[in-house]
Amino acid sequence: MTTLQDCQALDAQDPLRPLRALFQLPPHTIYLDGNSLGAMPVGAAARAAAVVTEEWGRDLIQSWNTAGWFSLPQRLGNRIAPLIGAGPDQTVVTDTTSINLYKVLTAALRMGQQDAPERRVLLSERSNFPTDLYIAEGLCKSLGYTLKLVEPEEIAGALNSELAVLMLTHVNYRTGAMHDMAAVTAAAHAAGALVVWDLAHSAGAVPVDLLGANADFAVGCCYKYLNGGPGAPAFLWVKPAHAERFWQPLSGWWGHAAPFAFTPDYQPAPGVNRYLCGTQPMVSLSLVGCGLEAFEAAQALGGMAALRKKSLALTDLFIALVEARCQGHGLGLATPRAHALRGSQVSLTRENAPGGSGAYAMVQALIARGVVGDFRAGDSGLHKDILRFGFTPLYIGFEDVWHAVEHLRQVLDSGEWREARFNQKHAVT
Amino acid sequence: MTTLQDCQALDAQDPLRPLRALFQLPPHTIYLDGNSLGAMPVGAAARAAAVVTEEWGRDLIQSWNTAGWFSLPQRLGNRIAPLIGAGPDQTVVTDTTSINLYKVLTAALRMGQQDAPERRVLLSERSNFPTDLYIAEGLCKSLGYTLKLVEPEEIAGALNSELAVLMLTHVNYRTGAMHDMAAVTAAAHAAGALVVWDLAHSAGAVPVDLLGANADFAVGCCYKYLNGGPGAPAFLWVKPAHAERFWQPLSGWWGHAAPFAFTPDYQPAPGVNRYLCGTQPMVSLSLVGCGLEAFEAAQALGGMAALRKKSLALTDLFIALVEARCQGHGLGLATPRAHALRGSQVSLTRENAPGGSGAYAMVQALIARGVVGDFRAGDSGLHKDILRFGFTPLYIGFEDVWHAVEHLRQVLDSGEWREARFNQKHAVT
Repeated sequence: MTTLQDCQALDAQDPLRPLRALFQLPPHTIYLDGNSLGAMPVGAAARAAAVVTEEWGRDLIQSWNTAGWFSLPQRLGNRIAPLIGAGPDQTVVTDTTSINLYKVLTAALRMGQQDAPERRVLLSERSNFPTDLYIAEGLCKSLGYTLKLVEPEEIAGALNSELAVLMLTHVNYRTGAMHDMAAVTAAAHAAGALVVWDLAHSAGAVPVDLLGANADFAVGCCYKYLNGGPGAPAFLWVKPAHAERFWQPLSGWWGHAAPFAFTPDYQPAPGVNRYLCGTQPMVSLSLVGCGLEAFEAAQALGGMAALRKKSLALTDLFIALVEARCQGHGLGLATPRAHALRGSQVSLTRENAPGGSGAYAMVQALIARGVVGDFRAGDSGLHKDILRFGFTPLYIGFEDVWHAVEHLRQVLDSGEWREARFNQKHAVT
Repeated sequence: MTTLQDCQALDAQDPLRPLRALFQLPPHTIYLDGNSLGAMPVGAAARAAAVVTEEWGRDLIQSWNTAGWFSLPQRLGNRIAPLIGAGPDQTVVTDTTSINLYKVLTAALRMGQQDAPERRVLLSERSNFPTDLYIAEGLCKSLGYTLKLVEPEEIAGALNSELAVLMLTHVNYRTGAMHDMAAVTAAAHAAGALVVWDLAHSAGAVPVDLLGANADFAVGCCYKYLNGGPGAPAFLWVKPAHAERFWQPLSGWWGHAAPFAFTPDYQPAPGVNRYLCGTQPMVSLSLVGCGLEAFEAAQALGGMAALRKKSLALTDLFIALVEARCQGHGLGLATPRAHALRGSQVSLTRENAPGGSGAYAMVQALIARGVVGDFRAGDSGLHKDILRFGFTPLYIGFEDVWHAVEHLRQVLDSGEWREARFNQKHAVT
């Protein structure tokens, strides 16, 4: 069995270990929630201060030119491109994931309406991240489509002649299960449908190859594994062949071909630029660059391939240690064991029971010990309550994993999670 | 004629003068572009540092609870409410002005479709801010409406039985001309139409009374007169009686009745909360509060009424001094002289000519002297090139006005604006 000393040796040999110094982590904390909100890069405070006091306070409107505010969505998009297998000038950072999904989903449905108007189904997973489903539900209602939700294993059977668009999140936010992007895209294309991918839990977590997979549209989040700061603007990618087929519906001035001509009529900008809409929040947007610096530093150490290798080693170790040391407490594994089917998180289940599964209290007890994961509620049917742990190879080490499991073991063996203080729910869970 | 000494005396007597100390303005600069990007409140740098290093870096995901991130759109909305004549819990700060306009315009058109389906016209001003027109054009295209654009004096005659929605910007971004919100709203209602107001150049600049005017929907900008920082998230207001009639189309999880239940189906939140969509950029959003602190400080000094009185005195003085001291250079006045018809800016015109009006170069020459206004291009038809000067009574004084006009006089009398360096256009004008 792997010992604490083994883990320390793994950290000592880890070629990615220097990257940890690029992040400021709170003391006495093992932060396993980078899949929800990535940790702060050390350069973020200075960058925020520069944008606020110099670009805003000192240079004011001149910063549109001197600080390049207007082109920041494209410049950041080009820095994300290598992480998602996109070419240059195909990606922008703007607005939110939900809003970007609305844009690309509308474009995909309009393409479908033109090319195959008899196809009236938008297919997704029932356990997709809810906001994706809400956006899809609203669009289906207004455009006259049927939103069909299935379990992951039912997707292949639902790729039929009724299908217009398949919308999936590459790595599931609850379970960490990962789709085979190339295979699923090929199967959907073979069935005559377009595919929209949400990379919220993939970008910066696993290698992604949008062009290689021949994907149609993608959106993703910059504040999880990309460490861009709380609520950082999101990214959007469109396959070049699709980019100019339609206006996206949020036809604002930043997506205009000549935004400073101030003409009364809309002329969409070339390529992905038409997917921009209004003025972006420059302080938050600028911080996205700080998170990307860590990936640029990782490039010399093996890049996403090396990060993926370490991520799998971390999650393998966590699973093995939990199964060896935390037996007899009703925990199960929601995350697939096969590497090809797993993102960069591990989700443990606990049986739902009349008095509750206890998973929420276990997470709270761990947080009180400085091990920060999170809880996701199950439902009365298919899904159990989940204890969710994200492993960001940029700043999590093997010793962190060992201590996290040791704390979990102590929480379970001592029964301390049953204390009332760990059962009081917060507003946001 | 008003002298420099008179202006200094006016500043000395100005009860609002202490508010200037709440802003950090660059040295040797008279900043007359607060209508484009408001100046930086002195507290902004510390606030940004706290959000980045404490809320993000130290507290990480706990800040959803401990820093109240999730309720920030509503809390900021309630602080803007007194500036726009809104009641509590009717306003949210979120997304961008363009996106918020898309939400409320869709809601207004859907209400119209239900109540008066034969009305198929969306009316606006030809010289409305272009992004408003672009959003309207896209929506009209997709929902089957006709976008009719008229000059301001033609609006009254276009309020007829075909009209579904009248969409206007309260204060025109080019000319500074202000509509009578209550009268226009009443006339549109009498004609059976709904009214959507864009308050981008009104909020924090002139008193606004949305409830008193019986307005239907409003959106506005937080980075102009509200001094919320570059690209700060925008605000949105809905008349309570309308708020729950429809989903807005961007039905994301922040607008869900129970966002953390993670149910697969969308249930809109009560009231204006359903106009939220996705996760907001917390650093930029937090800075909106710094700008509002100045208005809260102004409350004890007479509030918006006192700010309006000073704003009119500043713009009156600017007009009088320009007309007295800058004669013979082909300048005209685009901004109405009548107080009731004017916002908080003054726009000077210059005749379009084959070699150009020179207005752009004049603005550049002024900027080189530290007097920051901006240029807005005319077109070959109705509109002349404009030199635009915003007067933010929070931090602009009477002596500033005197020096600004003196610099303008020198630029014109010396002819220095004809120098080549002032004629090189920047990417963003």
